[in-house]
Amino acid sequence: MAHYTLCLIGFGNVGQALVRLLAAKRGELRDRYGIEWTLTGVMTRRLGFHHDPAGLDPFTLGAATMPAQSPDVAAVQAWLRAARADVLFDTSSLNAETGEPAIAYMRAALELGVHAITANKGPIVHAYRQLRDLAQARGAQFRFEATVMGGTPIFSLFRHALPAITVQGFRGILNSTTNLILAEMEAGKSFEDGVRAAQEAGLAETDSSADVDGWDATVKVAALVQVVMDMPIHLGDIERAGIRDLHPEEVRAARAAGTPYKLVSSARRHDGGVLASVRPERVAAGDPLAEVRGVDALVRFDTDVLSGLSVGEHGGTPTTTAYGMLADFIEVVSTVR
Amino acid sequence: MAHYTLCLIGFGNVGQALVRLLAAKRGELRDRYGIEWTLTGVMTRRLGFHHDPAGLDPFTLGAATMPAQSPDVAAVQAWLRAARADVLFDTSSLNAETGEPAIAYMRAALELGVHAITANKGPIVHAYRQLRDLAQARGAQFRFEATVMGGTPIFSLFRHALPAITVQGFRGILNSTTNLILAEMEAGKSFEDGVRAAQEAGLAETDSSADVDGWDATVKVAALVQVVMDMPIHLGDIERAGIRDLHPEEVRAARAAGTPYKLVSSARRHDGGVLASVRPERVAAGDPLAEVRGVDALVRFDTDVLSGLSVGEHGGTPTTTAYGMLADFIEVVSTVR
Repeated sequence: MAHYTLCLIGFGNVGQALVRLLAAKRGELRDRYGIEWTLTGVMTRRLGFHHDPAGLDPFTLGAATMPAQSPDVAAVQAWLRAARADVLFDTSSLNAETGEPAIAYMRAALELGVHAITANKGPIVHAYRQLRDLAQARGAQFRFEATVMGGTPIFSLFRHALPAITVQGFRGILNSTTNLILAEMEAGKSFEDGVRAAQEAGLAETDSSADVDGWDATVKVAALVQVVMDMPIHLGDIERAGIRDLHPEEVRAARAAGTPYKLVSSARRHDGGVLASVRPERVAAGDPLAEVRGVDALVRFDTDVLSGLSVGEHGGTPTTTAYGMLADFIEVVSTVR
Repeated sequence: MAHYTLCLIGFGNVGQALVRLLAAKRGELRDRYGIEWTLTGVMTRRLGFHHDPAGLDPFTLGAATMPAQSPDVAAVQAWLRAARADVLFDTSSLNAETGEPAIAYMRAALELGVHAITANKGPIVHAYRQLRDLAQARGAQFRFEATVMGGTPIFSLFRHALPAITVQGFRGILNSTTNLILAEMEAGKSFEDGVRAAQEAGLAETDSSADVDGWDATVKVAALVQVVMDMPIHLGDIERAGIRDLHPEEVRAARAAGTPYKLVSSARRHDGGVLASVRPERVAAGDPLAEVRGVDALVRFDTDVLSGLSVGEHGGTPTTTAYGMLADFIEVVSTVR
């Protein structure tokens, strides 16, 4: 039996789902994997830094006396040390432009030899290679399964189940908010009412531009290109168009013709580099992407050996995203033991 | 650098594709995985037993002096010893009723501590637990990724990328021959002409009954239930109906109505056991199974945490099946080192 002390950054929907899932799977982790765990640290902007090596319950924590607006690496490391952390889970929010402060969180943990598991795409998009190399140098692991398609295994699929393969490209639907908005527009709603429906479904943020303008999908494309295709890419290199300018009549007519609009994310190798894009496309009748509805996601990878491999997620929730982090945790500590 | 000696049973389409793929990936195996290999033994019914610890080329072997019709465990073990085998690849043909002689091949290898990798579903369906336990007792590995959906990772997906998950059930299209025949019938052909088209495409055997009567899919269902759902099941417990009795007019009318016939394989937990079936079903409009064409395959798994996870294969060939065996080989020896 191995015992691990866990620290958690962020306690929103995903952070809460993660703590509940860890508790629900406690017996299975012990019996099947020989893993015991204690949550010894929690840090959020509202709650500040909390630590207790004997274990703490994040659902009963009071608000902070010391605010934690922009914690620096030294403050995070002091907290990780005080909590005697073996593993850091990061559920902080994405800053697509810089990846911070999540990159600093990852660096703080890895420099101490603490495994770093994130659901935040920023560190992958802006610092994947540096963090990967830092982890290797410090004998720690850096994992991020939850960043694309939540708990559906993409990164671990290629890492463990598809050895000696070269990914030539991929094409899919990676953003569920736009998928839902397009479905609402097909059903007769305006763009604005579609956005409202997505917000009511708990999908879109108050500021929906990250989704509707294609940023969320673009960030996921950058993550897949860098990790699964092992090619460097910047967000600016990815052609990006959102669904804001589609007319509802166009959207309805396209669905009626059997060739609906979808926000399609794709990438392929070209001339020693990668051509990547996120844009609304009319998908052909019979294309599996045409039938991806609501909160589902689907991506097809083309490789040198397998001509096509599709992976789809049905019904993503905060709990499925939290599962991606739990799977990372089990894999990381199983590798270590 | 670790060096492995490999033995191969069967040298049909998959066996030949495997030897070509191993050769094509030789540099990548060496550089990325530190794996060198030599093929030191080949056994087929036509060629008999061949071995040469210095290495041999199966494409230039002459026919056997000693026939190898029904080799027993002792004969296979003598051959494996003479070839100094580390790993046995089995590409022999399925005997759905008994699983033999492939079970004997697996047992022969595992008893010697030789890793056993098979593309033959018989050993999974008829002897999964015994072979798994035997492998564990002898410190060897038993692997079978190629048995369902060829090189598309299913078993290794659950083994490595989906820890602490319980599979509640699955539903999908697992047999491509019937899928192709139904498409031909939808396009106006008779059942018999559809079978002929599948034979000309190299999919259906001269005796197509294993496919059209649902046996191939049933065997795959049994493999998935036993391994992925971890539940014992016998072939006779699986409700089975083929596509032989479907009228072409019915098939065409169903497609025209947008609810086409597919040979659907499914299983779900029920009352402490498993309810499993293979039968033609009209799938709903918008069901991703409706768009699975030709040689593609698609299966959706439902689990306790992830509500739905789909895995699809596009364009299966002997090379993609051989890739499943190569992936097993890399995983097995990476575990061992």
